[in-house]
Amino acid sequence: MAATPASASDENLDLDPAFALHRGGKIEIRSTVPVRDADDLALAYTPGVARVCTAIADNPALADEYTWVPNVVAVVTDGTAVLGLGDIGPSAAMPVMEGKALLFKEFANVDAVPLCLDCTDVDALVETVVRLAPSFGGVNLEDISAPRCFEIEERLRGLLDIPVFHDDQHGTAIVALAALQNAARLTGRPLGDLRAVVAGAGASGVAVTRILLEAGIGDIAVSDSKGLIYEGREGLNQVKQLLAKDTNRAGRTGSTEDALEGADVFVGLSGSTVSEAAIASMAPESIVFALSNPTPEVHPDVAAKHAGVVATGRSDFPNQINNVLAFPGVFRGAIDVRATAITENMKVAAANALAGVVGDDLSATYVVPSPFDARVAPAVAAAVSAQARADGVARR
Amino acid sequence: MAATPASASDENLDLDPAFALHRGGKIEIRSTVPVRDADDLALAYTPGVARVCTAIADNPALADEYTWVPNVVAVVTDGTAVLGLGDIGPSAAMPVMEGKALLFKEFANVDAVPLCLDCTDVDALVETVVRLAPSFGGVNLEDISAPRCFEIEERLRGLLDIPVFHDDQHGTAIVALAALQNAARLTGRPLGDLRAVVAGAGASGVAVTRILLEAGIGDIAVSDSKGLIYEGREGLNQVKQLLAKDTNRAGRTGSTEDALEGADVFVGLSGSTVSEAAIASMAPESIVFALSNPTPEVHPDVAAKHAGVVATGRSDFPNQINNVLAFPGVFRGAIDVRATAITENMKVAAANALAGVVGDDLSATYVVPSPFDARVAPAVAAAVSAQARADGVARR
Repeated sequence: MAATPASASDENLDLDPAFALHRGGKIEIRSTVPVRDADDLALAYTPGVARVCTAIADNPALADEYTWVPNVVAVVTDGTAVLGLGDIGPSAAMPVMEGKALLFKEFANVDAVPLCLDCTDVDALVETVVRLAPSFGGVNLEDISAPRCFEIEERLRGLLDIPVFHDDQHGTAIVALAALQNAARLTGRPLGDLRAVVAGAGASGVAVTRILLEAGIGDIAVSDSKGLIYEGREGLNQVKQLLAKDTNRAGRTGSTEDALEGADVFVGLSGSTVSEAAIASMAPESIVFALSNPTPEVHPDVAAKHAGVVATGRSDFPNQINNVLAFPGVFRGAIDVRATAITENMKVAAANALAGVVGDDLSATYVVPSPFDARVAPAVAAAVSAQARADGVARR
Repeated sequence: MAATPASASDENLDLDPAFALHRGGKIEIRSTVPVRDADDLALAYTPGVARVCTAIADNPALADEYTWVPNVVAVVTDGTAVLGLGDIGPSAAMPVMEGKALLFKEFANVDAVPLCLDCTDVDALVETVVRLAPSFGGVNLEDISAPRCFEIEERLRGLLDIPVFHDDQHGTAIVALAALQNAARLTGRPLGDLRAVVAGAGASGVAVTRILLEAGIGDIAVSDSKGLIYEGREGLNQVKQLLAKDTNRAGRTGSTEDALEGADVFVGLSGSTVSEAAIASMAPESIVFALSNPTPEVHPDVAAKHAGVVATGRSDFPNQINNVLAFPGVFRGAIDVRATAITENMKVAAANALAGVVGDDLSATYVVPSPFDARVAPAVAAAVSAQARADGVARR
């Protein structure tokens, strides 16, 4: 039986190929076992299924072997920070979450179920995901607004023994670190010698800053809409207070552009703009990652006049910093060893592996691989699995 | 990339073909659109997806056209009443829920997502499903213990504008009514002339009684583990008090077997047993549905010595009363017209349609079709869609 045909009322929308492609959704459930006759049914359903249920009730570890659960990731959002669109609510967020599920499957054979939740309260979101946990092998949090996203992820990581990963934070961070490692290699500087400026202290700005610190970047100044973040600045929330403590050693104040003078690295995750003059004021062979979408903080062609390496979030320019380079392989690797968590080390290992795929082909327009490079997800997965074992969070 | 190979530790379990079939689970997520290159990605994901999200934010009805949501049913359980196994918990319930999802897809092209929830409190279950609702076109409640299942379904029906259907109640009820209609036709009696005894006042016993009353059965006596239910019996919960009011007009007391003397119909949903003598004491051409699984209340060969029509829940005897004859078509029909609810009329219409598939081939060993009769789900779906329109609950 086919699903219902579309109504005629909105046919004009389908003149846009994006709408035409989305009609009826982008994913489906498929069976992996046959149900041709009563014999099949007696194995896949009653009475055969009762023996499998009983075995799992007696030995819960068998759920890992005889259900789809370990391979299924819940893609969870509340629709409060969807792409650059903001708080559009759970129903309107679904096309993005379906897209995520599509990419999980296509790039790493991970089954992902989009769950757009009709609640925005932190306690409610946490308790809902905890109640859902027996059905999933991992949780990918998506497009949840800051600073709620930080608390939700932290609490879930504490409560659950399956991987919890806020992709807007860590997916971006992993790919940005990989790109920065390769850009530093290309321009002949150790990471520890680099001074960086990160514009944006939302989910991705905070996570990129954290992973760069983890990777040993020399110094980082972070800015939000009120300018540079420094210890003692008034009105900082808890997340930014911690950030102020760990960054901006020089205690700079002022604007993003002020800090760019002489800086080696700019990472834009702010949705704002940066002038050509500010980019020109950076150190020689500067590294400019203007990652806001769809409009980068500075046009990549303009940045390229002054910088050694330029990257954006866009597919129509070189060096696209795209989360899809990270999340499929990260979850594949975590699931393969039944990891109970995704550690900071595992994220850095993912970045190292991703950087490594570029290898000897490294150039100013090739510091990260293409999303369609088939080596990416297996390389990331292998590194994540190995690091999970090293960190003692692998269950097999 | 393949999912992880199985560990060797439990290979002996796989000597049972039911375990071998269950290894790795029974369902997967598949994409329905291509992701071959950057152009595909730009339509299915950013930037193209943003236009679809924005359109849905502006006009929520478009979620019905451009997401998979309307075709997706949440199969929700808390694992408290799984098959005949009882309260085995959410993880051990998963193979049954995956099986349900498999049957939804195979029989009616409905995408179903198994959700085994780690909470048993009625309030918690209701609020969790409400929060999940934006992601689903329907809710199939499954294997939730009585009497909680009644309150959970009733509250969700009040709170949600998508179909909510507790299959243990209504799936069984629809198929039992269809079988009874055909059995009455075969034995030449109008439904209104029949006196019935229903053994069991759990989820399915209550629902079968309700649909039989709806269909105009003359009188019904219902029993639980303490015997027949009558008005004024001590210790009746609210559900049984209502049942006492609407049934047992003769005010019978005593046991199931006492009530069977001279009765036309027996429906067993109790997990208990009934003696051959009690079956023999029924009216001529009696109708015996011994539906407990795996052990019917009376062996069908024994019942057949005295009864005109015998049915069970088992696939290895004639006339299997199997929920799979109902739920795929019921949801297909409800989804096709975007029904906001499944009304009592829609359930009776489903039963009528199911009975109609048997047609002129009606015989004592053929009062319900085979689950593999390809006419079943389309016939049920068409009847449910038409009745939804007649009842004013169709949105298209």
